[in-house]
Amino acid sequence: MPEILKVDGARLLEATLARIEPADAQWLVRAQERQSQLTKPPGSLGRLEEIAIRLAAMQRTLTPSVSKPAILLFAADHGVCEEGVNPYPQAVTAQMVSNFLRGGAAINALAGSAGAGLQIVDIGVASEVRSAEKLIRRPVARGTKNFCREAAMTREQALEAIAVGIEMANDAAARRCTLLGIGEMGIGNTTAASALTAAITGLAPGAVVGRGTGADAACMVRKTTAVERALALHRAQIHDPIGMLAAVGGFEIAGMCGVCLAGAANRCAVVVDGFIATAAAALAVRLAQPVQDYLIAAHHSSEPGHRPLLNVIRQRPLLDFDMRLGEGSGAAVAIPIVRAAVAAFNNMATFSSAGVANAEGRTAP
Amino acid sequence: MPEILKVDGARLLEATLARIEPADAQWLVRAQERQSQLTKPPGSLGRLEEIAIRLAAMQRTLTPSVSKPAILLFAADHGVCEEGVNPYPQAVTAQMVSNFLRGGAAINALAGSAGAGLQIVDIGVASEVRSAEKLIRRPVARGTKNFCREAAMTREQALEAIAVGIEMANDAAARRCTLLGIGEMGIGNTTAASALTAAITGLAPGAVVGRGTGADAACMVRKTTAVERALALHRAQIHDPIGMLAAVGGFEIAGMCGVCLAGAANRCAVVVDGFIATAAAALAVRLAQPVQDYLIAAHHSSEPGHRPLLNVIRQRPLLDFDMRLGEGSGAAVAIPIVRAAVAAFNNMATFSSAGVANAEGRTAP
Repeated sequence: MPEILKVDGARLLEATLARIEPADAQWLVRAQERQSQLTKPPGSLGRLEEIAIRLAAMQRTLTPSVSKPAILLFAADHGVCEEGVNPYPQAVTAQMVSNFLRGGAAINALAGSAGAGLQIVDIGVASEVRSAEKLIRRPVARGTKNFCREAAMTREQALEAIAVGIEMANDAAARRCTLLGIGEMGIGNTTAASALTAAITGLAPGAVVGRGTGADAACMVRKTTAVERALALHRAQIHDPIGMLAAVGGFEIAGMCGVCLAGAANRCAVVVDGFIATAAAALAVRLAQPVQDYLIAAHHSSEPGHRPLLNVIRQRPLLDFDMRLGEGSGAAVAIPIVRAAVAAFNNMATFSSAGVANAEGRTAP
Repeated sequence: MPEILKVDGARLLEATLARIEPADAQWLVRAQERQSQLTKPPGSLGRLEEIAIRLAAMQRTLTPSVSKPAILLFAADHGVCEEGVNPYPQAVTAQMVSNFLRGGAAINALAGSAGAGLQIVDIGVASEVRSAEKLIRRPVARGTKNFCREAAMTREQALEAIAVGIEMANDAAARRCTLLGIGEMGIGNTTAASALTAAITGLAPGAVVGRGTGADAACMVRKTTAVERALALHRAQIHDPIGMLAAVGGFEIAGMCGVCLAGAANRCAVVVDGFIATAAAALAVRLAQPVQDYLIAAHHSSEPGHRPLLNVIRQRPLLDFDMRLGEGSGAAVAIPIVRAAVAAFNNMATFSSAGVANAEGRTAP
């Protein structure tokens, strides 16, 4: 791509941040008031009520929608794989992207089951992706560098990858999508997400490194050591979110961070998948705190670093299914729950319209 | 209805119990084997894998289905309301049945959102239900008796109400439905379910009585006292499940118990809603232990008696959403999760068919 056509990442980020507003407190109150009039004991739909109220406040309406839900799946490779942090060979990233494009992966089945669209973005896969008609090709580079030896990427590359995510989310919003899911594929990216988690939260690497897709004990030691080395090497760079991304992040993580930012800017709900997606969401929240109002945590992953990240984005996950796949799989499973919450809120009768007595035994005239 | 046309409840129960077989262990193994070949790290879809494997074993196939899912909602009234155990007037049962029939209740929105059918059964509502074209009228009596003073129903009535549930489930299975949800409406039925829970588990009434739809402190005292009085009064009758149902149960609880039994007999999955539905499921499991293999617990209700009942049916709920509405609302929210689990199991490519390397780096030829 000629240099002149490249997005000015810094400028797009700045413009996006300027558009982000908190969810509207007045609409929260109005939506809560409507919930209390619906034909059910107050609060009896539990978290479904909370989700509907939040969507009403995001969208500033008493008829919130889950319209054209779409999962944006970013794939990229990781130089840190050189350190033997993953049981799968790096080639699996590209193989799985081909699998996504042919419809054979978990996310294809789960997005289909949820009635959600699915877009696959090559934002930095190391090897050639074959049979790729539907692939959105936006590679920032052919994988990151090994962050045990040098920065994973430059700050400019981090901004460029965030810009890809922003553009994807802006495009979706322009198509009247009101709910986005984020997912990822990248062999080695639990190591990057663990390093980011340690950087964001200040926790020790040993407390945030987990088994990922299935690391054995020796692999776990290599992962933890890699994160420790990276944090020591990049100590001076990891004082701001862009610095963290550049030092120890990944292109797919930057892309998902961009979706969180632009989702919030466009007042779309963003359903955050598991550990790696939550690392991206946490960076977005660190860039702009009100982003948290637009995030819905899909599930609690079995990775030990996930809980501290959920605290950063201040979200309680909907599901606890021991999932640890990524791809946006948890986000896809959560979408029908958000749809159910909105359906109840929009379609239920009120006590007065239905002629049902409330807890005090009164029926409205 | 002339006596001659009435179902012989005892005979139908016996015939149904004779048809129940455990889920097939060989199919469990085969389904587990297929899960391990799909393009994901082994076990990485967590509970979704477990659900798909269970459905495969229930249906004895490697292509399990969620076909024509239907929620069977049983409504009935409770004589124990005389004791002031509920903040809502008893008339609300019939009013809510009208609301279900007009499509204005939570379960209408949630079943619709889940793509599930919904059948409303009057199995013992005290007052006349108006505007009731789609209502399935199978009342065993116009509400139970006050079980603080006499048995809620006769053993014959308990068997008749179970038979209604069995027939509903048999009909659904004959229409090729493979997944049933159970729900209920009945002002006062958390008190009946609490009494059943104490009878089934041996726990003290104080440990199993909860706030229901919103009991205040004085109401809670009356509920607990009512359960204590009932257990003392019916001590001699509550030694078998039918005796428990007759002494302190409800017609809707008996109906749901029948669905669990016939669901298992027809090898349908039965998605169990919250506290009251789980009391019905626990009675079914006490009547035939293998019924547990066909039950899927939808959510963990905030009622304190729910957890001990979940232990009886040996199921871990899918959701924990602080829901306490009933109607089958939790079951409806869980149905898309079961559908997602089955979609992944049926539609994903295998490592060899997709040309993806597994954890050892091997791609099959």
